Amino acid sequence: MRVAVLGTGLIGGSILTRLLRSGIDATGWDPDPGTVSYAREHAIPFAERLPDAVDGRDVVFLAGPLSLLPDTLAEVVKHADTGCVVTDVGSVKAPIAEYARDNGWAHRFVPGHPMAGTERSGLAAADPDLFVGAAWVLCPQPGVPLDPFRRLSGLVTTALGAKVVPLAPRTHDAIVALSSHIPHLLAGSLAGAVARSALREGVLSLAAGSFRDGTRVAGTPSVRTVDMLVNNRDAIGESLRLVQAFLAELAEALAGDDVAALTGAFDEARGVRRELFERSTRTSTDRFPRDAAAEEYEFLVKLGADGGHLTGCAVDGSTVSYTAARPVTG
Amino acid sequence: MRVAVLGTGLIGGSILTRLLRSGIDATGWDPDPGTVSYAREHAIPFAERLPDAVDGRDVVFLAGPLSLLPDTLAEVVKHADTGCVVTDVGSVKAPIAEYARDNGWAHRFVPGHPMAGTERSGLAAADPDLFVGAAWVLCPQPGVPLDPFRRLSGLVTTALGAKVVPLAPRTHDAIVALSSHIPHLLAGSLAGAVARSALREGVLSLAAGSFRDGTRVAGTPSVRTVDMLVNNRDAIGESLRLVQAFLAELAEALAGDDVAALTGAFDEARGVRRELFERSTRTSTDRFPRDAAAEEYEFLVKLGADGGHLTGCAVDGSTVSYTAARPVTG
Repeated sequence: MRVAVLGTGLIGGSILTRLLRSGIDATGWDPDPGTVSYAREHAIPFAERLPDAVDGRDVVFLAGPLSLLPDTLAEVVKHADTGCVVTDVGSVKAPIAEYARDNGWAHRFVPGHPMAGTERSGLAAADPDLFVGAAWVLCPQPGVPLDPFRRLSGLVTTALGAKVVPLAPRTHDAIVALSSHIPHLLAGSLAGAVARSALREGVLSLAAGSFRDGTRVAGTPSVRTVDMLVNNRDAIGESLRLVQAFLAELAEALAGDDVAALTGAFDEARGVRRELFERSTRTSTDRFPRDAAAEEYEFLVKLGADGGHLTGCAVDGSTVSYTAARPVTG
Repeated sequence: MRVAVLGTGLIGGSILTRLLRSGIDATGWDPDPGTVSYAREHAIPFAERLPDAVDGRDVVFLAGPLSLLPDTLAEVVKHADTGCVVTDVGSVKAPIAEYARDNGWAHRFVPGHPMAGTERSGLAAADPDLFVGAAWVLCPQPGVPLDPFRRLSGLVTTALGAKVVPLAPRTHDAIVALSSHIPHLLAGSLAGAVARSALREGVLSLAAGSFRDGTRVAGTPSVRTVDMLVNNRDAIGESLRLVQAFLAELAEALAGDDVAALTGAFDEARGVRRELFERSTRTSTDRFPRDAAAEEYEFLVKLGADGGHLTGCAVDGSTVSYTAARPVTG
């Protein structure tokens, strides 16, 4: 398999270096001259021009900024082979999925989103182990052949070591609003309120674990945070109201010295926190005839919405086999 | 110096094991039979009864639950030598400071609060290095001799390896509302909203760094969290409104696609986050005549409110010397 990674910052760079370490023929491309120099100095295969990077490739990862994604996708589709599968790593999935579908590219574009990162950025911060054990969302597209999804699922689970979570784009966007975007809004609000407070210096001096953890993602470059938020505005707005309501409930119980209500609410919260670490899964192998796309599609998006993931995908003649893990609840 | 630690959970146990490792004559006491057994099995010096624990001690640390603090303080004062200095490690300072003052114990009680901890609990989780480099608030009491504060400052900076932050009790309570208590409310609101959401399983499945960090302190036992919050109700309410206002400002800018306002607000937040790690300090030695308590008191509480701390305290004849570090601001 021959792969190209376009945009080699933290995420793209980590994909590229991991693929190379796995012995896969992979090349990078990035418009930033500093990144190009860095790649050359470190003997990372790099193409001069985007058309050269995608020429003859089986899979192309789009890992540039969210705002440039539609234009880059259009350019890749123009230059890549017709059999080339294209995916992206953007943090919001419905807009790009719709864009691809509207342009008739749904049969070769699989929206994706690896759930890993750090507050650092750039190719120099790339880490080939960044995705090991992490969730990696891939969105199978309804009503089109699922071959591109299967090829990527195989590559992501084997070469990159991630768990593939299959989700419909809108479900993904609603989930990441809660799991990732609202944490950025909360961290920003905590750090921002301190920035404006007369107690600023004292808070910085007494800040221990809870403040450090609660503000960590406020260290992300603001442009990247805002880019992510505005692209998922509606899903964030909806879930943010739930979080604000919970906070208001806590504030009211606190103002009224209602210890029972406070304890009950924190117990609810603690249950979710514990399950982050104590969740057990059961594994199954699910097989589909290669041409029963509708049934396979329904299986996939239900698996992801139920909190499950794929650890493998293989196509053997006319049969598709998925290894799936589902959480065991209650 | 002979020391007793009453209540040997995570904090008290960490103090006790650190003191013992530093070669100080220290003993523990705890009402929990399981803790007593653990101490015996691990050859940690432990007293059967509270009066035995405090008998002949120069310093007593009160490290039990916040709600038991006033009664324990009263019992300690009854049994300890008159020259014995008593301090506590509770997360709220104004109520216990007032209680001690109202009972005429301000000359021997120094409210304290080490800014360290983990979500684990119990003597088995004790870590002698827990306080190394951490901030440790001590509240000098106005209008009384400062000898108890000086003795504790020396012990905490040398034997325990912490930075002493001198603060008036109400200033401490306002600061920790922002630096510690509101992070617990935000983490609880995020995890709690997910607990009630139809997207719960998907969120657990996609939860990456931002969700893990943003909910970490929601793993704290609820009773401990609520105990801490209700004891600092008013200071929390005041600062929580600032955080909620900042969050509402972000939500409004997001709903209105106001990228400039969002970026500006996140830049403010990021400034505070960066300063957590990039703050530089300048060090000075400040000397006071031993009996000029008012001047020394003003120096101390201003130092703490300005974000500074003490790294040492020595009394030499009639002179008190403090080594102080102050943040250098831009």
